[in-house]
Amino acid sequence: MAYQKGEGKSVVIALGGNALGNTPEEQLELVENTATHIADMIAEGINVVVTHGNGPQVGMISNAFAEASAHDDSIPEMPFPECGAMSQGYIGYHLSQALLGELKRRSILRSTACIVTQTVVYPEDPAFQHPTKPVGPFFTEDEAKARAEETGATFKEDSGRGWRMVVPSPKPQRVVELDAIKDLMDDGYIVIAAGGGGIPVIERDDSYHGVAAVIDKDRTSAKLAADFKADMLVILTAVEKVAINFNTPEQMDIDTMTVDQARGYIEEGQFAPGSMLPKIQACIEYLEEYPNGTALITSLDHAAEGLKGETGTIIRAR
Amino acid sequence: MAYQKGEGKSVVIALGGNALGNTPEEQLELVENTATHIADMIAEGINVVVTHGNGPQVGMISNAFAEASAHDDSIPEMPFPECGAMSQGYIGYHLSQALLGELKRRSILRSTACIVTQTVVYPEDPAFQHPTKPVGPFFTEDEAKARAEETGATFKEDSGRGWRMVVPSPKPQRVVELDAIKDLMDDGYIVIAAGGGGIPVIERDDSYHGVAAVIDKDRTSAKLAADFKADMLVILTAVEKVAINFNTPEQMDIDTMTVDQARGYIEEGQFAPGSMLPKIQACIEYLEEYPNGTALITSLDHAAEGLKGETGTIIRAR
Repeated sequence: MAYQKGEGKSVVIALGGNALGNTPEEQLELVENTATHIADMIAEGINVVVTHGNGPQVGMISNAFAEASAHDDSIPEMPFPECGAMSQGYIGYHLSQALLGELKRRSILRSTACIVTQTVVYPEDPAFQHPTKPVGPFFTEDEAKARAEETGATFKEDSGRGWRMVVPSPKPQRVVELDAIKDLMDDGYIVIAAGGGGIPVIERDDSYHGVAAVIDKDRTSAKLAADFKADMLVILTAVEKVAINFNTPEQMDIDTMTVDQARGYIEEGQFAPGSMLPKIQACIEYLEEYPNGTALITSLDHAAEGLKGETGTIIRAR
Repeated sequence: MAYQKGEGKSVVIALGGNALGNTPEEQLELVENTATHIADMIAEGINVVVTHGNGPQVGMISNAFAEASAHDDSIPEMPFPECGAMSQGYIGYHLSQALLGELKRRSILRSTACIVTQTVVYPEDPAFQHPTKPVGPFFTEDEAKARAEETGATFKEDSGRGWRMVVPSPKPQRVVELDAIKDLMDDGYIVIAAGGGGIPVIERDDSYHGVAAVIDKDRTSAKLAADFKADMLVILTAVEKVAINFNTPEQMDIDTMTVDQARGYIEEGQFAPGSMLPKIQACIEYLEEYPNGTALITSLDHAAEGLKGETGTIIRAR
């Protein structure tokens, strides 16, 4: 291999959904900016795995097949895990392309590799008893009930807009392609993996089987980072630093905190569920499994500074 | 890495379209059989890259987005290269899952890695002047002409069924992810790559850009095999052996031939264009670039025997 290797830290970078877009044209444009900031981090000599969300994209793919198959018998319905697999190809292709261009412009002799990724979840995960995440197209009440009966899936009324399938968000237990991802990272590749948290699969009869579920990509990133003892987990979001007393006159940005402090803030209800809370929880999961690690939460455009310890919120085990 | 490595030959296996299906359910079922036969080959101790076609699948995805976006403004049209990227995720996920199950059942401690793959083509490739491959949905003549004007794409009337976009089939020049694919193969992974011949890209301004084209997957497989000096290129098709005087009383199966003999048969018009001919040509391209290699054409269910030299048609440089 003629490539340069990063001599520095190993880092798992979890990209937020704002780094991508809603159409292929938007996405192609947005990933250019994303690639610039990731390349700023790579220029620091790190070894990298880039993970990313897929909410809008997997929704778009699922909706397209639902709509098309309703109008055209030659087009099949597409199960949700397969839509997730498609979204990994779609997003990974654009990300990889943008990163390769940016690396080339900077004469950084490194390459990318996008790995189609499955993530094991446990069928006995309590989340399967309480599906909460609405995905895919809207249906009428009658359609939803017919589909529920036919497939065993759960449907719920969604904010007056119609009925949608709701799927569970189980805990990621293991990334199937972990070794390939780590080997490629160690060889100096910029690895794109675990898109959308990975395609959710359960293990049964010696095989993996896709299940309709969504896995929090930050939790999968935390699991990946812990499993291969990555020096850093970087979760990118809309804000430069985590804040307490958010949106009040007492708002205070946090530079560093320990896991215990983070837990204290969680108990105070400082972090919004569905927003900052799951990101903090993902950092805690990583640090509990790998206490020597460092977690960083910051925004995409402050990521390179954050990596150098100049901004962002750092979380450590103690 | 705790995995077993193949101690034997390095082999690029190109799967035919009959190894996959037309719906997700069909595909899940068919890849089980495919995986059994590939595992038979892996059991011989080879290091493997598996490539595959994507014709029906990329068509399905392209059609689904065309149909859905026509009915629903919230769903974008999807360019052809992005449809190809989706098809790699979709097929690679199923193939990988089936292979992992089959390896586990046989207690073969090896893993899989599916790489989203781009293939460089030259914009000056003469194929771009003569697009011939119909892809995607059918349009009326008026729609087709409006689209042709809007996008610069070429549309042609297709056998009385309507108008379709036709795209070129340029020569694959280079697989962008070649090094990652080779490194993973050398590390013992069963690599799934270059789906559909790879997403066709051209190089411009230091970046890759997707183009609407289809690349013959056998030619990309040949290029891959030549570029990393794979010991064998195995092209799987519907028949056990290549035949001359096909479908006549003088039909004769070929056990082995040299490149010169193959060229002679081609001049006699022995191999059907769009069927056996491009497979033979792919083998010739591989052997011209890597004369120490061995090319094998046979059917999926004879592949393991063929690998041992017991059946199939072997082509050598001389």
